[in-house]
Order: sequence, then C-alpha cells, then structure tokens
Amino acid sequence: MRPTFRERGLSCGRLPVGALNAITDVPGVQVGHCSVIKGDSVRTGVTAVLPHGGNVYREKVAGAAFVLNGFGKSLGLAQLEELGTIETPVLLTSTLSAARAADALMDVILEQNPDICITTGTVNPVVGECNDMYLNDARGRHVGSVEVRAALADAKGGPVLQGSVGGGVGMTCYGFKGGIGTSSRVVSAGTVGVLVQANFGLTEDLQICGVPVGQMLGKAGRPEPPPGSCMMIVATDIPLDARQLGRLARRAAMGLARTGTFASNGSGDFVIAFSTAQTIPHYADSRTRMVEVLHDGEMNGAFLAAVEATEEAVYNALFCSTTVRGRDGHVREEFPVEQVIAKLHSGA
Amino acid sequence: MRPTFRERGLSCGRLPVGALNAITDVPGVQVGHCSVIKGDSVRTGVTAVLPHGGNVYREKVAGAAFVLNGFGKSLGLAQLEELGTIETPVLLTSTLSAARAADALMDVILEQNPDICITTGTVNPVVGECNDMYLNDARGRHVGSVEVRAALADAKGGPVLQGSVGGGVGMTCYGFKGGIGTSSRVVSAGTVGVLVQANFGLTEDLQICGVPVGQMLGKAGRPEPPPGSCMMIVATDIPLDARQLGRLARRAAMGLARTGTFASNGSGDFVIAFSTAQTIPHYADSRTRMVEVLHDGEMNGAFLAAVEATEEAVYNALFCSTTVRGRDGHVREEFPVEQVIAKLHSGA
Amino acid sequence: MRPTFRERGLSCGRLPVGALNAITDVPGVQVGHCSVIKGDSVRTGVTAVLPHGGNVYREKVAGAAFVLNGFGKSLGLAQLEELGTIETPVLLTSTLSAARAADALMDVILEQNPDICITTGTVNPVVGECNDMYLNDARGRHVGSVEVRAALADAKGGPVLQGSVGGGVGMTCYGFKGGIGTSSRVVSAGTVGVLVQANFGLTEDLQICGVPVGQMLGKAGRPEPPPGSCMMIVATDIPLDARQLGRLARRAAMGLARTGTFASNGSGDFVIAFSTAQTIPHYADSRTRMVEVLHDGEMNGAFLAAVEATEEAVYNALFCSTTVRGRDGHVREEFPVEQVIAKLHSGA
Amino acid sequence: MRPTFRERGLSCGRLPVGALNAITDVPGVQVGHCSVIKGDSVRTGVTAVLPHGGNVYREKVAGAAFVLNGFGKSLGLAQLEELGTIETPVLLTSTLSAARAADALMDVILEQNPDICITTGTVNPVVGECNDMYLNDARGRHVGSVEVRAALADAKGGPVLQGSVGGGVGMTCYGFKGGIGTSSRVVSAGTVGVLVQANFGLTEDLQICGVPVGQMLGKAGRPEPPPGSCMMIVATDIPLDARQLGRLARRAAMGLARTGTFASNGSGDFVIAFSTAQTIPHYADSRTRMVEVLHDGEMNGAFLAAVEATEEAVYNALFCSTTVRGRDGHVREEFPVEQVIAKLHSGA
Repeated sequence: MRPTFRERGLSCGRLPVGALNAITDVPGVQVGHCSVIKGDSVRTGVTAVLPHGGNVYREKVAGAAFVLNGFGKSLGLAQLEELGTIETPVLLTSTLSAARAADALMDVILEQNPDICITTGTVNPVVGECNDMYLNDARGRHVGSVEVRAALADAKGGPVLQGSVGGGVGMTCYGFKGGIGTSSRVVSAGTVGVLVQANFGLTEDLQICGVPVGQMLGKAGRPEPPPGSCMMIVATDIPLDARQLGRLARRAAMGLARTGTFASNGSGDFVIAFSTAQTIPHYADSRTRMVEVLHDGEMNGAFLAAVEATEEAVYNALFCSTTVRGRDGHVREEFPVEQVIAKLHSGA
Repeated sequence: MRPTFRERGLSCGRLPVGALNAITDVPGVQVGHCSVIKGDSVRTGVTAVLPHGGNVYREKVAGAAFVLNGFGKSLGLAQLEELGTIETPVLLTSTLSAARAADALMDVILEQNPDICITTGTVNPVVGECNDMYLNDARGRHVGSVEVRAALADAKGGPVLQGSVGGGVGMTCYGFKGGIGTSSRVVSAGTVGVLVQANFGLTEDLQICGVPVGQMLGKAGRPEPPPGSCMMIVATDIPLDARQLGRLARRAAMGLARTGTFASNGSGDFVIAFSTAQTIPHYADSRTRMVEVLHDGEMNGAFLAAVEATEEAVYNALFCSTTVRGRDGHVREEFPVEQVIAKLHSGA
Repeated sequence: MRPTFRERGLSCGRLPVGALNAITDVPGVQVGHCSVIKGDSVRTGVTAVLPHGGNVYREKVAGAAFVLNGFGKSLGLAQLEELGTIETPVLLTSTLSAARAADALMDVILEQNPDICITTGTVNPVVGECNDMYLNDARGRHVGSVEVRAALADAKGGPVLQGSVGGGVGMTCYGFKGGIGTSSRVVSAGTVGVLVQANFGLTEDLQICGVPVGQMLGKAGRPEPPPGSCMMIVATDIPLDARQLGRLARRAAMGLARTGTFASNGSGDFVIAFSTAQTIPHYADSRTRMVEVLHDGEMNGAFLAAVEATEEAVYNALFCSTTVRGRDGHVREEFPVEQVIAKLHSGA
Repeated sequence: MRPTFRERGLSCGRLPVGALNAITDVPGVQVGHCSVIKGDSVRTGVTAVLPHGGNVYREKVAGAAFVLNGFGKSLGLAQLEELGTIETPVLLTSTLSAARAADALMDVILEQNPDICITTGTVNPVVGECNDMYLNDARGRHVGSVEVRAALADAKGGPVLQGSVGGGVGMTCYGFKGGIGTSSRVVSAGTVGVLVQANFGLTEDLQICGVPVGQMLGKAGRPEPPPGSCMMIVATDIPLDARQLGRLARRAAMGLARTGTFASNGSGDFVIAFSTAQTIPHYADSRTRMVEVLHDGEMNGAFLAAVEATEEAVYNALFCSTTVRGRDGHVREEFPVEQVIAKLHSGA
C-alpha cells in the first residue's frame, strides 16, 4: 500500500480526521479484504465492512441508502430502505460476482444462524459492486464462498489496507488504478467514517482539492475507461435513525462530486449508511424500544463530515493503489502521485 | 393443475379477459417453469417470464417497478428504475435462492452474449422471490444453474401452468397452498397480463370478489403462516414508457389489496412492469430514437386492467395449486374450492 | 348529516372500531370544518385536521406521506418526507384554493408564532385538495383567510361531522355526492383513525364490502365525473417513527382499493400519516432525544387498521353526504343508501 | 448588475458556454424578474422561468425534479413527478410567499385558460422558494398578484439579469449577498442552461474552482446566516424524457456540491429540470404520440453540462449581487470579488 493522501502532506476539508483516518474510527466497525489474483487475468476481490464484530443478524444496525445513479447491481437495498436496518456485513466486489458473493455471504450467515428459515424468517445480504472488466476476467465470477469467507475472516478494526486490495483489486478511477479508499472526520456529535470502492471517472474530470489535475495529466495514451461506478459506505456512531441516515447518505454523493466526476451514465453510484449507536435486536423482548436520535438541527457536523470523508476516501483510493496488469495485457497504471503533488504545489 | 377461478364459473372485474387469460396474452411474452421436488424436503422451483423470445439483452424492453412493501430480496430493481429497461428474463424463485438463481441466469446470458464485460458493459439480472421455508429446505438453496436453464428452456407462449409449479411449488397463500397465478385483461389500447407468485396472507383476511371467505373458512388447525410475500409481474403491449409503467405497477398493488391482504410486515410485495410495444437496442445506431407513448389521459383502461388481472391472478394461484407436503412433514393443503364456491353462491 | 355506514347496520373488516368510529378516537386529534356555500355556484369549503390542540409548530408530530397517484397539488410533502414531521394543522380543500388556503393557514401560524422568520426559520403548511369543479366555482378560489380561520376555530375532538361538509362540500365520489368520511380501528398497540376527502371513481367501479354495487346502480343519467382525487389522513397514537408511518400510509391506499377504484389517471391520491405518540419540540433543549418506537414486527395490527378504517371512511363519505346543487345547475345526488342496502342484503 | 464570473476573466469546467452563458441559451426559454423593494424592510421579489413563450398549459414540456434536501416548501413537485410535465412558468420567490405567488400565478393562468375547471381539469403551478428572512419582512409575504404579473410581463429571451434581482433580492449565499445566477453549456446533443436562486452556505465552506476562498475570507463580523436553500432550474433542448430529466436533475446537485456547500440541514435544495425539445399538448388529438428520446448512453455530455453550469450559476449569483440593506438594519454585503480574484490568482 502506497502512502495516503494525508501521508503525502496533503489535506482537504476543514474538519479534524479520526485517529486512523479510516472508517474503523467508528468504534466497532471492522474491515476485511480478500484479494483474488490468479494467472494473467483474474484481478478481483471482495471487501467486507462489518458494522460490529458480533452477529449482525442478531444485532442489526440502523441503515439507509441513497442511489445517485442506479446503473448498478447492488443487492439488498429494498429491504434496507423498508426496514431501515442492515443485518449482514456489507460486501463490495466485482459486478458480475455480486450475486455469487451474496450467495456466499448467506453460506456464512446461515451457518451462524441455524434459526433462519427454520424458526425465523429470511436474511437480507447487502452487496455493492463495481465493474472490473478492464483488468479482470469478470465473466469468470471469481468471488465465491472461499473468497467471502476469507474477507470476513480478515475483518478487524484498526488501520485499513487501501488501494488495490479486496474489492479494489480490479478498479479504475479517473483513468488510473483505483480501488479501496477510506477516511474519517470527527465532529462534536461523533465520528463519521467513509469507505469507497472507487471505479469511475475520466482522467480529464479529476479534481483534487478543486484543482483540475486531470486536465493537466492528459490522456497520455491511457485507454478510455469503460463505465465505472462508485460504492460509498458511510458509518457513524452518531445516533441517527434510518431517515436521518438517508440524509447523511446524500451528502456522501456531494463529497464524490468534489472530486470532479459527473456520475456518468454507466457509473452506478450508491451510498449505504449505517449508525452503530444502537443495535436493533432480531428477537425483541418487548413491543417497543427506546431509541436515541439526534435532532435534525444538529446534523450539520455529520453532513460536512460525510462530504469531506468521501472526498478524501476517493483521493486515498487513487494515492494508495498500485499498478495492476490483468486481462488481455490490460494495464492500469498507478496514480502519478509525485507529478500531481508537484502540480498542486505549483498552484496548478 | 386444478381448474382456474374462471373455469370454475367465477369471475371478477368488468373487463374482458384475453384468449388465454394469462400473461402470455401479451404477444411475445413467454413463461417457463422448473419445479424442484426432491426427497422429503425440497419443495421449490423457479419461474421465468420472458418479455420476448429473442435476446433480451440485445433488445431490451421498457420497464419499471413498484415496491409496496420492501421486506424482500429482489435483485435488479435499482438499475431497472434508473434506466427504465429490463434486459433479462425475470425469474421468480425462493428467497434464499434468489442470488444463486441470478448467478445462474448470468451463466446463460453470458453465454448468449460473449461481448458482456469484454467489449460492452455488464448485465442486470432481475429476480424476484418469496419465502418458501415452511414447505421447503430453503436453506439448501436448491435453485441453481440447472434449474434456471430448465425454466428458460421451458419458456413458451400459450397457456401457462399455474399453481404448485416452478417458483410456486413452495408457496403458501392465505394459509392454503399458493403458487403461480396469471390472468389478463383486454382494453382498447391493448392487453395487460399479470403473473403472480402468491405467498402471503392470513386465512382470515382472504376476500374473493369482496366476500370474506377467509373468515368463514376459519383456521381449522392450519399452522400460522410465516411471513410471506407477493411478486407481481405486469406485462403489456400498450406503448408505455418507464414512468407510465411505474404508474401501472402501482395499480397491481391495488389488485392485490382486493384479495383482502394488508401487506403484512414480513410480506415483501413487489411489482415489476414492462411493455413489449417497442424494444430498445443495446447497440444504438443513432443518438436518439423515436418512441411511441400513450397519452396519460388514455391510461385508465390499462390501470383497471392491471387491478383486475392481479386480483384474478391471485385467485388462480389459490384455485390451481395442489396440496404439497414438504419439510419436516409440513403440509399446505390445497384451497377448498368447492367449499368456497358454495359459500360464494350462498351469498356468503 | 345522514347516518353512517355502521349506523345503517353495515360493517366491514374484522377489527373493532373506536368509541367514535372517527379519527378523533386518536387522543388529542381534532377536526374542524368550514363549509362555503354562497349563491348558486359556490360549493366548497375546508376541513382542518389537527394532530393536537396545542401549538403544532412548537410541538411537532412525526409524519410521513405516500403518493399513490401524484396527479394533485398537495403542499408541504417534500419537507414532511425530509424531516419526518408535521408542524401545522393539515387542511383539505378545493384544488385551486390549495395555495390560497396554505397562505391563509400561514396567517394564523405567523400570528401564533411571532418568532417565525424573525428569530427562527420558516413553517411548512400541509394542505391537501380535491377538485370540486363540477359543483363549485373552483376558479373563484373561495377558501381564504376567513374560511381557514373558521375551520380552525371549529376544530375539536369528539364526533366528526361527515359528508357534504367542509372540504367535502363540493366532492363527487363514484358518481354520487362524496365528501368527508372518517372511521377508526383499535388494535392492541393503539388506535388508528382515518379521515378522507373522497372525490374519485366511476359509479361502475364502486364496491361495498366487495359487492359490485356500482354496476347494479348503473349510470342512470349521471354525468361522467371529471377527474377526482382522494386525500387520506391517517392518525395514530401508536409510537411509530417517520419511516414506519410511511409504511402505514401505504396501507391506506390498500383500503382505498377495496372500495373498487383503480386510481384513475386524474385522481390525485395522497396519504398523510402522523403519530401523536410523542411530540418533537421546535426548540430542543438537548442534542438528542429519546423516542419510543414500535418494533416493525408488531405493525400488522396497525396496518390492517389503516386498511379497514380507510375503506369504511370512504363508505361514510358516501353514506353521510347529501345532495348538492351547484355551479351551472350541476347536481350530485346523494348516495341511494336504501337501494344499496337492499342490494347488499339480497346477496347482490 | 455587477460583472459575471466569466466577465471577470475566470472560468470553470471544460465545456464551452452558450452565447449568452445563460439559461436563455436554450431556445425559447424566457426569464422575467420583479424585484420588490419598499421602505426599510421589504427586500424580496420573484423570478419567472418560462419553458417557452406560448401557453405552457396548452403546450406542456417534459420535466422532472430532484430533491437533494427536502427542507423547503416548493409547490407542484408531486404532479411534476407523476406526469413528467411542467404546465406553468416556474416561479422562484420568498419562502413564506410561495403559496401566495402560486395563487397569483393561477390568476394569470386561469385568465389565459378559461377552460380550466370548467371543461377541463386543474392546473399545477410550480413554485420554488428560498428564505429571505434576514433581509426581508418575510412574514409580510410581499409577492402577490401584482408582482407575479410583473415578473411574467418581464419575461424574455436574451441576456438574464442576475444577482440581487427578482427572487434574488433577499438572498444570502455563503455569508454574502446572493441571488439569481445563470450559466449554460453547449454539448453535441444540445444546450443545457441552469438558473439558480442561491441562498445557502457558510462563508467558511465556499470553494471557487475548488479553492477554499471562504476560509481565507474569514467571518469578518458577518452574522451567521439563517438556514438557506438553493433552487436550481435546469433547461435543455436535448430530447430527454421525464426519467432522463430526473437523472439530469441529480447532476445539478453535483454542481452545487462543487461550490463547497454540504447542503445544511435547513437548506432546502431542489432541482427542477425540463426539456423544450418537444411539447406535450394538453388536448391530444390521438391516443399516442411519437417522442424523440436520447439514448441514455449519450447523456454524459448533458450530465457534465448540468454540473458545470450549476457551479458557474452559483458563482454568478455571488459575483453579480450587490449589497442590500434590509429588515432591522440587516446588511448583506456584496461578494468581495476583487479580493477573491486576487486570492485565486495568488494560487490561494
């Protein structure tokens, strides 16, 4: 993993970052990766984001989604919107593998929960995806049970591996190697962390801190990217209910916009947000429950935090990713960090 | 297959039905089933609804969805809503098998379209589901590649097998054996056909033609149904665009309501609507295309048709299904048609 | 006011009704009317539904909306959906008067809240409407400040005047005189009350308790109704949050469907739901608040209650309304209750 | 009107601007203003955007909306979404005056269309608003029939007056005087024009071309802005249907994001988009119509155009507005353009 945006001495936004500058700054959140790299053409993987380390089916978290551009195949959003809960780890993987990964996630959840579809109802796996066809044998759908189990087994708090790892292995962002990026912000109400799977954009659209570095970099023989996507996971420990998390999710899209993209036709841009402030038991022992919720008038800090952390998470996806050669000799070169920093320092 | 509602001499609504009284009255639409019945506890299957017999990925149809109750795991709805197109056959299967069936559907589509993820983009499989855990070893997820291929191979126009078949094998509806039902209506603008996977409701809520027959039938020792669902597919040859198909989809929910259900918390009730009036080429040979669209002021016929056909499709699911014994000796008895008809004729 | 559906010895549904069989069975809810009947052609009015008798701006209630058919001009829904709160009485009036009534409602609220737009923010008036052009000089927009003040002054708990009163004066329902109707249901979790402004449907579509009485009544020289609408207000004291109230609102549309309508193209059918279980202070004295919420698994009673109360509220609008002669000699005859009851008793 | 952003020698984005760099670059689109400035405390107005110079009720245009933050009181959006049409000029005014202005707009439309609510149905006025309470006697609601008529009478193609004019008189943007701004972009498929009513943001959040000039400007004794809002109108002559216009509308929100705002809790941020490519007759002479629609794969140009034009329209609102002193001696100072340009040129 190459140094992050901030490790390069850069910064964006005006809010303080968390200790790890990662989604794992939200207490309890865990991230695990499984990179799947085989032969000349398998360049894919899966990343798991866990709201907490326990049994998420038993102890659900409040969640919501926002679809900026629905040209994507994410699973689980309808129930997430209806019930306002997330009850599984959230996976990020290759588009064509999304259903297979969801099935594999069910393998694990069914093992952990022998009551599902015997004495209690079903389970709603949540999976996001981006199209890694440029580098990867996407048609092969190489993310299945082994890979999902590996990602879940790898899940932990602490620093998050970024770049060409897990669901980020096959990603392309702004014409360069993209992948997983994360960042966080701390406001008085709590912490907001964002993790992105960044796979979108034309080089010429890239802006860093508003500087149109993409136009300076030129196309330089880089092949036109196929349609991409960006998956954004927003976690917080601020007590927000599902409606409020939907509001928060929309701000992540604003952070994405800051990096210069216009959410192209083929870019399925989805945000999934959750709050770890309270868990919601699968088996309720009473008819009602008491929920702490932030007043909407107090949400501005969280809103700005989601914007800034999403913006920086995209930069990290670029900064941390390393060159990948894959299917049919296709190569995505790593982001020319030094060249970009020079441009940024020269006042663009 | 037992006789349909109408073959029993009953009718509902005031519009004429199509020649087949089936979704296949919409020209080009095909339906195929694969029933999966093995040993004592595998009671499941998959039903495929094809907008046309060609390559749906190459020749997409306009589509839309309406979610009455999002407590479900349907796949493909986000892109369907964003782009207003359906580009695969629509599958209906068991909840826990939905992802596996989607993956299997991709097997077929990838074979048929060697360009996907090589020189063109991804594909968006659309799969609906209902929970068949009462009768079926749902956790086993017995609908995979073989079963999906079989359902697709079985797809044809003409009469539609209804009841305990395909995705209907494991269904429970109003406490009795449910399953697949279909019906159609003809209005001046064209034909509207509906196919349902009916798996919802408490006996006491059932109404037929408004008569509360469910309350007359009593519980009679029938086990409380677990949370169900209803998937509704609405097809038409009327030239409607995606926005209008969304309007049409909402009327299917009104037809569902006529049968007495209140869309219980756990009942994921989804409508998917499409129009076969025109296809939308995957590879466009021009920047724009000309689309014929009905004036919204002319939609009332189609609206009523969707209501009536959905209502009758649910009745058919009940009337046509046969008793199924499955997992752990669980039995869903077939709908006591004669008893119900006697009640209906006696003025309830 | 003519006798209600239930006072005629009829009933629908299986849940018990509240003491008043009215939205005012929900403790604290108040209803007020101002009927505006002048000369030969002014046949309109306004009905106010108050979540409670206090200052609703200061003590908001949780709310949500569902739009079954958006062909309508209701005000205030965007903020209602975003913030999940209702902060004014809800008015129901004539379509073209909706904006004028909203402005008049602001007169009152600004008087009561001298801080609005001085030291605190704005206010979001919520107004629903139906088109009363057949009977009324709708273009004259006869509902303004005087009328809104009168409706608010009339607001009280207790029995609710129904039929051709307030916002119901100019309504047409299923080809007969429509208007205001209300009903309620009691379930273990609390009370659900519904009030409708019923102005929709063709005679031939009317079903009562599922019996197609509309088709028996024939057209009998009744003029074709112009496009109508149905506004539905759902109140409850069950502790539901905004997301859950949205779920509840969708069930009201299912109750509407039970009366036979298919929500015609021109029928703007809107549901507004609120819970009085807790109020949300405009001026918060802390960053968060504790909210009691029902488990979603416990919502079925409320769902069925909303279906049944909406169905019966529509019947009451028909049963209670009296013949009105209005603009250009247009007449809407009152619903032929005795004839209909005879048909219902004869087994239709 | 002070010079625009581009007249100051600045630019943003990479697409060419239209001849006027205004929403009126879209052929047929007209803009009119009425500024309402009286005494010490009336500082408000109304701006009208007309899709074309004819009778918009008779010849509707395809339209859609996107609500980034629904904390606002816009009128007309439900029907706009349902039918996908705009049938009146779009007004932008003061929040508390929105209903009054809608009523006034109806005065005019009813005069022009004597058939409304006599022999044909109702009309759906579309009005957006922002809160001008800091400078204006908002409670007085000073935008009524006279003012709306004046704005409509002023409507014309050609250059658009920007800044503290019409609906922009009382606006505050990023702590400085805001108001009306417009810009356009030309792509191969056609022209996209945007007009904003900019009334949002904290100074410290302002970014211009990504440079955080807001943080350089400091607070400088400027009073904290009350909750604001941003109304965005997107016009195009590209043949897009309602679904596609909804997609386009979401890109305007991304342009807004580029200026640094995070869409604060109280900022009701709405986008209304329409296409003038074809009109939709109120009185159809056939059951269907032929509509030209762009392939979704061709929308990227329009998407980027909407992003860039929205960003620049906000800058123009700032650059063109002049200092306004209003209610209670409140003053909003004009944007310190020279100071900002110096900062931008110095490399920030």
